[in-house]
Amino acid sequence: MKLSNKNYIVGIDIGGSKIIAALVQDANIFYKIKIPMPKNKKDFFGKLEKVIGGLIKKAGGKKNIGGIGCGVAGVLDLEKGTVLGAVNIKILNGFNIKNWMQKKFGREVKIDNDARSFLRAEYMFGAGRGYKNLVGVTLGTGIGGGVIIGGKFFYGSFNSAGEVGHMIYSEKKEFEDLVSSKSLKKSGFNSSLAAYQSAKSGNKKAKEVFKKLGEYLGIGISNIINILDPEAVIIGGGLTGASEFFLPQAKETMKKYIISPKSRKNVKIIAGQFGENSGAIGAAALFYSQNI
Amino acid sequence: MKLSNKNYIVGIDIGGSKIIAALVQDANIFYKIKIPMPKNKKDFFGKLEKVIGGLIKKAGGKKNIGGIGCGVAGVLDLEKGTVLGAVNIKILNGFNIKNWMQKKFGREVKIDNDARSFLRAEYMFGAGRGYKNLVGVTLGTGIGGGVIIGGKFFYGSFNSAGEVGHMIYSEKKEFEDLVSSKSLKKSGFNSSLAAYQSAKSGNKKAKEVFKKLGEYLGIGISNIINILDPEAVIIGGGLTGASEFFLPQAKETMKKYIISPKSRKNVKIIAGQFGENSGAIGAAALFYSQNI
Repeated sequence: MKLSNKNYIVGIDIGGSKIIAALVQDANIFYKIKIPMPKNKKDFFGKLEKVIGGLIKKAGGKKNIGGIGCGVAGVLDLEKGTVLGAVNIKILNGFNIKNWMQKKFGREVKIDNDARSFLRAEYMFGAGRGYKNLVGVTLGTGIGGGVIIGGKFFYGSFNSAGEVGHMIYSEKKEFEDLVSSKSLKKSGFNSSLAAYQSAKSGNKKAKEVFKKLGEYLGIGISNIINILDPEAVIIGGGLTGASEFFLPQAKETMKKYIISPKSRKNVKIIAGQFGENSGAIGAAALFYSQNI
Repeated sequence: MKLSNKNYIVGIDIGGSKIIAALVQDANIFYKIKIPMPKNKKDFFGKLEKVIGGLIKKAGGKKNIGGIGCGVAGVLDLEKGTVLGAVNIKILNGFNIKNWMQKKFGREVKIDNDARSFLRAEYMFGAGRGYKNLVGVTLGTGIGGGVIIGGKFFYGSFNSAGEVGHMIYSEKKEFEDLVSSKSLKKSGFNSSLAAYQSAKSGNKKAKEVFKKLGEYLGIGISNIINILDPEAVIIGGGLTGASEFFLPQAKETMKKYIISPKSRKNVKIIAGQFGENSGAIGAAALFYSQNI
């Protein structure tokens, strides 16, 4: 679908700790609203309605909105539009977010999960361009993932391929329990930003915590690489801002655990280029391509 | 390539503990030789030459041999024909097995790893027929894997997709350290067969060991399913004969760890139907299809 100059897509990224919504054309954001994740269901829908309504007004009315693309951090029924399981946004479990938006705003709504939205943005417009086999991993409140094989999204047989965050390490611990802002909070930091600032100021404990996180990340990515053997893994999500404190360790650990010598030597680990906007850009991009 | 009635393929399966070689047409085995894995390099090549030579003679000479397909338990350079890393057959590391066979026997040689050979046999002729997204997992001396996506083998960017056995659980332990005949030996059994017979006779310890193995297997398969979301996972390898003692536990564990409700409900866990012959059948099948 080709948009005229005044035809915007509303791109929405519903993550574990915040909502970002924007007026989007391709990779360009014309207006953006960011709010922390509301605490309860009523508050959530009230605020989401206000945010989307505000964007539509800003665009000059519904006539200038080509559609609404929405990324949600959870396992979704893409056909029906229902949130099947959102570990970090429990208020959405079982809810049909697609129907709700369609009814509220009278525009076509497309949904996908937040990690695939990130990957779609980076693959179509950003740091992931040109790779045929690409895995996206988002490090935020939890860990999400997306898989591109042969230049196309691989959704899996039940639309849940790429749920890398729920990989189990030991018997009880998941990837996202070890490498996420949740894990930083468990280590005594109020937020990933607080941990980052602490490490930045030279705090030894914060640096150690990030190093350990990097080691777990390296193991997790090695597992993904041993299974999927991609050309590149692209990393996004809120934690990437602090990557200087964990990515070197992750790469060091990967040297140990990637089994194929060719892959060990050639696979690339890259950071996304759109930062916190990638989710909204990628959700809007659901309207730009049928294949991706 | 269509074979006439007297045109055989030599299919070879080189695993961690044994070599199986056979005269094959499609899924039919006309003559089979099985020997334990020789202990040193000289012995290995001497015996392998004798085995293949014996099969060619049985077929009535080279004129009746369409080619040699060989599956090896390791990471391979498929273009060159070199064994890059065979954790459980260290004598082959760095060796160009394709060139060696081609020179010795003057027939075209195709190679692949043993787990993909298993999966190819089952997908083309056996229990895996009809699935579009299918993962094969072989439980033997180690653990191997193969991935079919959209009805075609997915080899990955560096030909090492599906190396699921090297998935790390805790910081040091791999999937194949926890679920393989190696792991049974560590638990005090001389072989997986000994462990099986012991469990069969009612031995409590053996039963417990298999149950724990099943739990680890369930976690490992859940991880694979969360990443690849296949329609089915097909299990093969030497350990499958004892599956009655570990597969029920694995399925129970998977209910807990598969994150997508749809996948949890619908994904199938099936056993291969060709038993120990699958590797040789699948290696020979390299000559029957370009895509698979």
